[in-house]
Amino acid sequence: MTPVLRAERILDRCDALARCSEATGHLTRVYLSPELRSASQLVLDWMREAGMSVRTDAIGNVIGRYEGAQSGAPALMLGSHLDTVRDAGKYDGMLGVVSAIECVAALTARELRLPFAVEVIGFADEEGVRFGSTLIGSRAVAGTFEPATLDASDARGTTLREALRDYGLDPQRVGEAARRRDQVLAYVELHIEQGPVLESLDLPVGVVTAINGATRYQIEIEGIAGHSGTVPMHLRHDALTAAAQCVLAVEARACGEAHLVATVGKLETMPGAINVIPGKVRFTLDLRAPADEQRQRAARDLSDSLQAICGERGVALTMTTLHENAIAGCAPWLMQQLDAAVTAQGYPLHRLPSGAGHDGMAMQALCDIGMLFVRCKAGISHNPAEAVTLGDVEAGARVLLRFIENFNPEQES
Amino acid sequence: MTPVLRAERILDRCDALARCSEATGHLTRVYLSPELRSASQLVLDWMREAGMSVRTDAIGNVIGRYEGAQSGAPALMLGSHLDTVRDAGKYDGMLGVVSAIECVAALTARELRLPFAVEVIGFADEEGVRFGSTLIGSRAVAGTFEPATLDASDARGTTLREALRDYGLDPQRVGEAARRRDQVLAYVELHIEQGPVLESLDLPVGVVTAINGATRYQIEIEGIAGHSGTVPMHLRHDALTAAAQCVLAVEARACGEAHLVATVGKLETMPGAINVIPGKVRFTLDLRAPADEQRQRAARDLSDSLQAICGERGVALTMTTLHENAIAGCAPWLMQQLDAAVTAQGYPLHRLPSGAGHDGMAMQALCDIGMLFVRCKAGISHNPAEAVTLGDVEAGARVLLRFIENFNPEQES
Repeated sequence: MTPVLRAERILDRCDALARCSEATGHLTRVYLSPELRSASQLVLDWMREAGMSVRTDAIGNVIGRYEGAQSGAPALMLGSHLDTVRDAGKYDGMLGVVSAIECVAALTARELRLPFAVEVIGFADEEGVRFGSTLIGSRAVAGTFEPATLDASDARGTTLREALRDYGLDPQRVGEAARRRDQVLAYVELHIEQGPVLESLDLPVGVVTAINGATRYQIEIEGIAGHSGTVPMHLRHDALTAAAQCVLAVEARACGEAHLVATVGKLETMPGAINVIPGKVRFTLDLRAPADEQRQRAARDLSDSLQAICGERGVALTMTTLHENAIAGCAPWLMQQLDAAVTAQGYPLHRLPSGAGHDGMAMQALCDIGMLFVRCKAGISHNPAEAVTLGDVEAGARVLLRFIENFNPEQES
Repeated sequence: MTPVLRAERILDRCDALARCSEATGHLTRVYLSPELRSASQLVLDWMREAGMSVRTDAIGNVIGRYEGAQSGAPALMLGSHLDTVRDAGKYDGMLGVVSAIECVAALTARELRLPFAVEVIGFADEEGVRFGSTLIGSRAVAGTFEPATLDASDARGTTLREALRDYGLDPQRVGEAARRRDQVLAYVELHIEQGPVLESLDLPVGVVTAINGATRYQIEIEGIAGHSGTVPMHLRHDALTAAAQCVLAVEARACGEAHLVATVGKLETMPGAINVIPGKVRFTLDLRAPADEQRQRAARDLSDSLQAICGERGVALTMTTLHENAIAGCAPWLMQQLDAAVTAQGYPLHRLPSGAGHDGMAMQALCDIGMLFVRCKAGISHNPAEAVTLGDVEAGARVLLRFIENFNPEQES
């Protein structure tokens, strides 16, 4: 039997897409840029070659459709995004689009028509680099695009409205990108993990349980500044030692529970002089969990314990919530079918949450979502060092193809 | 009996000196400035009025001499500095000069001649604000002035050599400011505490045991940066949580031993983004103690425990010593005589180290040193909010006068 899935071709195509960059030497491809048009053109060509009818939708997403046994049937939607962060890796987003096309090519090669259509979508904006608003492509498809976003402007002052026109799209007609619920059976995305879990477990793939919810805080501790030489330890109200205790409390709370992560990413001391006891410390807290209740419980516990730490130390604590995102849970019936595909392909089963955001966060407004993670090297992403192995890419594509072939849209509740 | 010590006059004179400033509204008086000349003139007048012969030495210090029973006898030297930091308080330095003059005025009023001379010195530079080199006045008197300092320049590019000339002094003759060891019996300085210890103990004065030694470090912890959402807690090498543990270890070590103080004054996270696990943290450590051995032992312990913390967490630690100053210990025989004066005046006795630096650090190269601290409000210094009470100023002057009257230069070893 000829191998119908060609993992080398998937990697070659990721390389080809990586050459569609605003500068040579590194990969940067933002929404509605000439390089996004080049990349989209390549993708449209590959979709056509894989036996799909293709189109670009009203927000700039590229869509290929492989009809089922009956023309016009609702579709299983696969895909990911084609835009990148600045100085990006070659697989974040692109691997999901190219792998899905490879799966459809395999169906075409076997002339296999399914009881549903398969669509592959390459979202034009997920990262939000150009207009500061993420998930523009998937929000438009899900019907949750905010028209006010048309007034957002990029670093050069070009508005999204103008950029759409320059790209040949009509800002008035963005709403036409929205799909009807009865047209889409589910959205399933293959993506690199962007974390180190699968590598640490020596697994090529994993089934995602949820795109984690996140709460972000700005925290300020106010103590009393003083001369580092003249104030004895027992008379100090050091904002930094209080903050240090808070940082460790945050770490301990998150370590005590699976899948919860908590990070103090930025911390500043004021006045910040070698011979002055810090009078004020400002730090951030990023709290994520695959269940909203879990995250909210951790947030309450941390608020209490940070308050207690600061109370005991005679310093003042202020916690300000910067933003809060609920989880985007993967549908159990899709997880089960992804599990079955993993097992059928002979890989050990592992479920894990996604700590990073994905298009599924927007797509869940339209349909149930599922995700398949592929191992990446050292968990590195948003970085030119992003890397995957040929074997893992093949594993991901095989699982995805098996999932498509056996996809049963009749969800058991 | 008429009160011979007039504390109100001390405070009035501190107010008068505070008006000798480079700007109205705040006090800044740097070395060899027109305002230092005005302040020096006031001090010379008060010294003369108190019965002293006066002069300005080769580095710009003002000196008043009150002869003993026999003319030309070696002197007990009292004093402090007349320069200030920027936006200074009114008592740091000045209180010691003005209180000493008040004591001599009391001797004069009673026509009391002692078996030794008393000199009062107003050092022209202790803070080092103008030329970045501290203790210029006392180093010159102690004979440890480095001629290379003449080439140091201020913010406008004026060298110390030029500034001395502009002030009417001869840079070639700076060496003449140095005193011979047989001319000086001891150097004793009254100074505000600049810390909160006396206030916390409700004591007006305290006898200083030593000007603390200090070691300063730059410390860097290198971990591994990562996405705050995708790296599970157990796979992290977070430089900040390691640093937080180090900050608490520093605090715990210093709290465990009297008079040891340790401060992390500045801490920076890199890259310092809300959604990135810190890959690198840089922080300072300022370690002070009244005994060099105590400080060195703490330094060794901290180096070991920080290394252990970082080793366990799989992050790399680098500790660089920025500078190290040995202690300037106060002479036991001077402490005993200061103790006796405190007790004789009816105040409870308390000895404490000085966390901040003082002219005694330079003067110890010439003679034994002693210091008397006067309580200040909330430990605040180097700040316009610096404050003392009339009662405490009187207490300080009474103790100093009693010390002078009973001063026995025959030190028992």
